[in-house]
Amino acid sequence: MGRSTQKLSQEQKNSAQEGLSAGTTAKAGECNNRKLNIGLFGFGCVGQGLYDVLNHSQSLKAEIGKICVKDRNKTRSIHQSNFTFEQDDILSEKKHDLIVELIDDADAAQALVTGSLRKGRSVVSANKKMIAENFEHFFRLLLEKRTSFLYEAACGGSIPIIRTLEEYYDNELLRSIRGILNGSSNYVLTKMELDNLSYADALKQAQLSGFAESDPYLDVSGTDSKYKLCILTAHAFGLILRPSDILNLGIQNISEFDIEYARQRNKRIRLIAGIERSGEEYIVKVLPKFVSRTESLGTTDYEFNCIEVEGVYSDRQFFSGKGAGSHPTGSAVLSDISAITYDYKYGYRKLKKRINGHFPDFSKDADFIDKEFNLRLYIRYQNKSELEKLDINKVVEEYSSQSEEYIIADVGFTSLFKLLGEPNALFICEDE
Amino acid sequence: MGRSTQKLSQEQKNSAQEGLSAGTTAKAGECNNRKLNIGLFGFGCVGQGLYDVLNHSQSLKAEIGKICVKDRNKTRSIHQSNFTFEQDDILSEKKHDLIVELIDDADAAQALVTGSLRKGRSVVSANKKMIAENFEHFFRLLLEKRTSFLYEAACGGSIPIIRTLEEYYDNELLRSIRGILNGSSNYVLTKMELDNLSYADALKQAQLSGFAESDPYLDVSGTDSKYKLCILTAHAFGLILRPSDILNLGIQNISEFDIEYARQRNKRIRLIAGIERSGEEYIVKVLPKFVSRTESLGTTDYEFNCIEVEGVYSDRQFFSGKGAGSHPTGSAVLSDISAITYDYKYGYRKLKKRINGHFPDFSKDADFIDKEFNLRLYIRYQNKSELEKLDINKVVEEYSSQSEEYIIADVGFTSLFKLLGEPNALFICEDE
Repeated sequence: MGRSTQKLSQEQKNSAQEGLSAGTTAKAGECNNRKLNIGLFGFGCVGQGLYDVLNHSQSLKAEIGKICVKDRNKTRSIHQSNFTFEQDDILSEKKHDLIVELIDDADAAQALVTGSLRKGRSVVSANKKMIAENFEHFFRLLLEKRTSFLYEAACGGSIPIIRTLEEYYDNELLRSIRGILNGSSNYVLTKMELDNLSYADALKQAQLSGFAESDPYLDVSGTDSKYKLCILTAHAFGLILRPSDILNLGIQNISEFDIEYARQRNKRIRLIAGIERSGEEYIVKVLPKFVSRTESLGTTDYEFNCIEVEGVYSDRQFFSGKGAGSHPTGSAVLSDISAITYDYKYGYRKLKKRINGHFPDFSKDADFIDKEFNLRLYIRYQNKSELEKLDINKVVEEYSSQSEEYIIADVGFTSLFKLLGEPNALFICEDE
Repeated sequence: MGRSTQKLSQEQKNSAQEGLSAGTTAKAGECNNRKLNIGLFGFGCVGQGLYDVLNHSQSLKAEIGKICVKDRNKTRSIHQSNFTFEQDDILSEKKHDLIVELIDDADAAQALVTGSLRKGRSVVSANKKMIAENFEHFFRLLLEKRTSFLYEAACGGSIPIIRTLEEYYDNELLRSIRGILNGSSNYVLTKMELDNLSYADALKQAQLSGFAESDPYLDVSGTDSKYKLCILTAHAFGLILRPSDILNLGIQNISEFDIEYARQRNKRIRLIAGIERSGEEYIVKVLPKFVSRTESLGTTDYEFNCIEVEGVYSDRQFFSGKGAGSHPTGSAVLSDISAITYDYKYGYRKLKKRINGHFPDFSKDADFIDKEFNLRLYIRYQNKSELEKLDINKVVEEYSSQSEEYIIADVGFTSLFKLLGEPNALFICEDE
């Protein structure tokens, strides 16, 4: 393989070797993009990934000025002169025209992103919790300040879903969005099934691989997926839901028995976050689900994420890509930085459509959530009394052995909210 | 299911029912988009789909003025006052500020698109043949005229791949792109396998369903996929390849025997178009391939298309959606029309990067194609002499029965070009 390249001109060789863009503007023929100086907050997994990816992108007009970190004693992979421990060194330094926020603490992030946007600076963030919990706040601020706030890496890792919802589905009536939005829990489910690992061992491997949040409970409980679902819902349907409005049951109680149960039925367990229209309302939830091995959601393995969008005319579209990891997430951040160089802003078209002369009361958007229906569920329990909270309308299967007990039943959706926030030993999985 | 909606305000109800955007601009907070009057050429499958989709989009500021069609005697689904038979009625009518070209004849399309762009009009097209064969022509024209020419529906049907390559992978070093780019041939393969249809019956069903080109040979021979691959290659790698530069072997000689052979090995046959880096060169081809039932390409059925993009940092991303049919393709055209309302233009960043002071000789881009390698192929033949053209380096399996004969062999890639344009009875399938 490989032939002589003597016939290639130098120009051709450069292009073949680099394959990188000139960082020109979005408008053909124009060239008004500027060189960005980035003030970076956070140098964890994603921050370091961004640093690598940015250093290997020869054509993007952006460089990292200072990096603000918290821990003074941690050994860093690059020289200490790159770092500061004072937020203000970045926030009050005028040469940083772009703030990239990649820290863990959502409250601290909210404060520094808000401050930066108020000063008219562009901001890129990957902080799904912060964005989901403060969506209306940021939406109002952006309407007022007209600066760029991009956060593609906050949803679906490397999948360009927010921009696709913004730009491609802007006039499409959507029916549903569902997907696997947490790479760490998907990694655990895949490892348990394909490598026969226990839940604890699989989770440990996810942490060692750098896929898990610093508090892995956020991953496995479906909380992280819920944040992402809130963000997608705003861009896709123009609804601002709070994370607390949404039911999330996770995989924290899953066992090898459940994996084996799925396997014997030629199914797999996946943690699915979704919103779908139900008349004038929406069914919204994060729940483990038995999926077929041949449907798209069932082929998404390890730290991959996927998103299925269904539109009335465009029909069913499917996107997948790595949902965790330093470089894939770093490359999503890089893509936002590149978009900032030509002043790209989200249009928030579906939200803006609701502003007819006056600002709607977004705080009541939870009223759009349909809760009056039954779900067919597999429920494995250790103590039958734990089922009492649930509104079980019909049991269609019941199993008990010396070691395991489960039922398959139709359960009132509302009653599942009673499980939130209280520890239990139930593993619940949607079974349609 | 369904609860009282009395608590919803009228504003909320409108939003829930419509879910459509306000057609505002891409820049948050601004609102400079205009109402478009569309001059439409062609009212076949896609044209009618667009008409439906546009009429149901209440928020897009665009309306179809006149429709130019060729056949004076055909019965149309809408009133004849909408139609004209004279191109000039549209081209010289100044009120049409957007030309949407959805005709079959690539040469006629080239002339009218060129004329419209020269006049500074925006154009949307779905004509992959015309675009692939005239890529450099249009690229130069757009650099000069700085008008919008969008063609998302020309590649991958409803999948928003061109804009994703333009906007999301603009700074990413890509390794490969491969996909199923022709809905009609994928429909034939799926029907043969899942419904045990003969090739002829499956093709007839694809035509009846409106998925096939007016000349279905373009679909089944891989020619249509090749046009699309040329377009993707320009946007992803900044190379302008001509369709004649690319090897395409299709499914026109496939039989139930081949389908059964794949099935017994737990594989499926899919017609894959792809480009991948090979050192400083690129391997480019359209070939049937045995794929696993669990990999993403193997889960793409019927008229769906899919595209897998592999980047150095973003890793493997997968997109799928309907690749044929009136409404899905119409909705891709609609999305382009919507983008025109806020003056979106492709950036052609990877092509522009190659213009360093002087315009490169794009006509030599075929020199980037690597042809010096072997491919492991399944070749079913009817007459052994047909194998003589091929540079067979190693036969690893040989089968013959009273009715069927095949070999599995390593074959020099260059020799496969000898099959192009000459009829033969070989069915060739990549086997890796």
